[in-house]
Amino acid sequence: MVKYFEEELENLKEKILQMGSLAEIMIQKSVKALADRNEEMAMEIFELEKQIDKMCIDIDDRCLKLLALHQPMAKDLRFIVAGIKINSDLERIGDQAVNIAQRTLSLLKHPQLKPLIDIPHMSNIASEMLKTSLDAFVGQDEELARSVLSNDDVVDGLRDQIFRELLTYMMAGPSTIPIALDLILVSRHLERIADHSTNIAEDVIYIIKGEDIRRGKQ
Amino acid sequence: MVKYFEEELENLKEKILQMGSLAEIMIQKSVKALADRNEEMAMEIFELEKQIDKMCIDIDDRCLKLLALHQPMAKDLRFIVAGIKINSDLERIGDQAVNIAQRTLSLLKHPQLKPLIDIPHMSNIASEMLKTSLDAFVGQDEELARSVLSNDDVVDGLRDQIFRELLTYMMAGPSTIPIALDLILVSRHLERIADHSTNIAEDVIYIIKGEDIRRGKQ
Repeated sequence: MVKYFEEELENLKEKILQMGSLAEIMIQKSVKALADRNEEMAMEIFELEKQIDKMCIDIDDRCLKLLALHQPMAKDLRFIVAGIKINSDLERIGDQAVNIAQRTLSLLKHPQLKPLIDIPHMSNIASEMLKTSLDAFVGQDEELARSVLSNDDVVDGLRDQIFRELLTYMMAGPSTIPIALDLILVSRHLERIADHSTNIAEDVIYIIKGEDIRRGKQ
Repeated sequence: MVKYFEEELENLKEKILQMGSLAEIMIQKSVKALADRNEEMAMEIFELEKQIDKMCIDIDDRCLKLLALHQPMAKDLRFIVAGIKINSDLERIGDQAVNIAQRTLSLLKHPQLKPLIDIPHMSNIASEMLKTSLDAFVGQDEELARSVLSNDDVVDGLRDQIFRELLTYMMAGPSTIPIALDLILVSRHLERIADHSTNIAEDVIYIIKGEDIRRGKQ
């Protein structure tokens, strides 16, 4: 029974990592479709969302079964509860990639404002934050998880920089307004991806330390 | 032991409802501060966020203890797991109210564009969705929970209407751009509050039916 439980915990970890990889692919693909103005690639995101939603339901089921059939204590219990939360964050990262794909389809109706630099940069950082938080989850590495938290400020800085630049475009020519608005919304979606990745890193610290990192914020 | 467990479940429900009431107050107050251009009221939201964050940690602790010390099965288990998710959604609703308060402080630097009508209307609907989903949680009322789900489209419609109207303002006069942008972001924050309320309603259905409503989406 104990062996079975440990196997199931290992399977759960594996499933979360697979879902995390898919979320990373969705972020990268949605921003590449935007930068390359590739409608077909943007459409692929909607298909990937169906996959990630299925994974989310499967992981929830696994967590519930582990809680119901075993009586996990201490770290195992924290691992499963954190699994439920990480699952929800990954699903919402998928939603954000879908939102970016929708903005891309809207942007394709207009000419390109300028080659994108800051948005792919912001996307790389957000994607890296997700990857690092998942690596910290696999390795149960507190230091690595903490390294994610500081990146949040970098992302906020980029969001503000993108906002100011696009505001300048809008002020200079009203025809650019719908384009600039879509790009501003994309930067907000990337900001939320970074937020979700931060949540995941906080959950990893919680699993390891047994202590809620958010307490420190108060 | 059973009696103690049931009392603790009842306490958990009570705590979630208190947090839900605070979240409702934060939505209403943040939009009232915006509509009335009341800086002091906007500042109050930052204080309320500290309270809601404390409640969130307390509820997480309670859920963990219930899972660890008892071996809840079936509906009780679903109730606690849904409690963890609802808790997280309520905390994020609080975050959105904070974002609205930040946008309000930014808007106070500019003259008023026009009296607000659609944003308070959207806020009332989002706030009502939250209230209904919490009522459904208390009464374990599936029909009531389902009634929340259909409102999501109304909110999306209002978001698009607000967007189009503000776009017209921006096109007509560049000086209105920063103001209109802040208002568009407020409408996005309200949209997210409605999304979180929908998540809560879905969790209530899950508690009652034992079946994940998101399966129907695939």
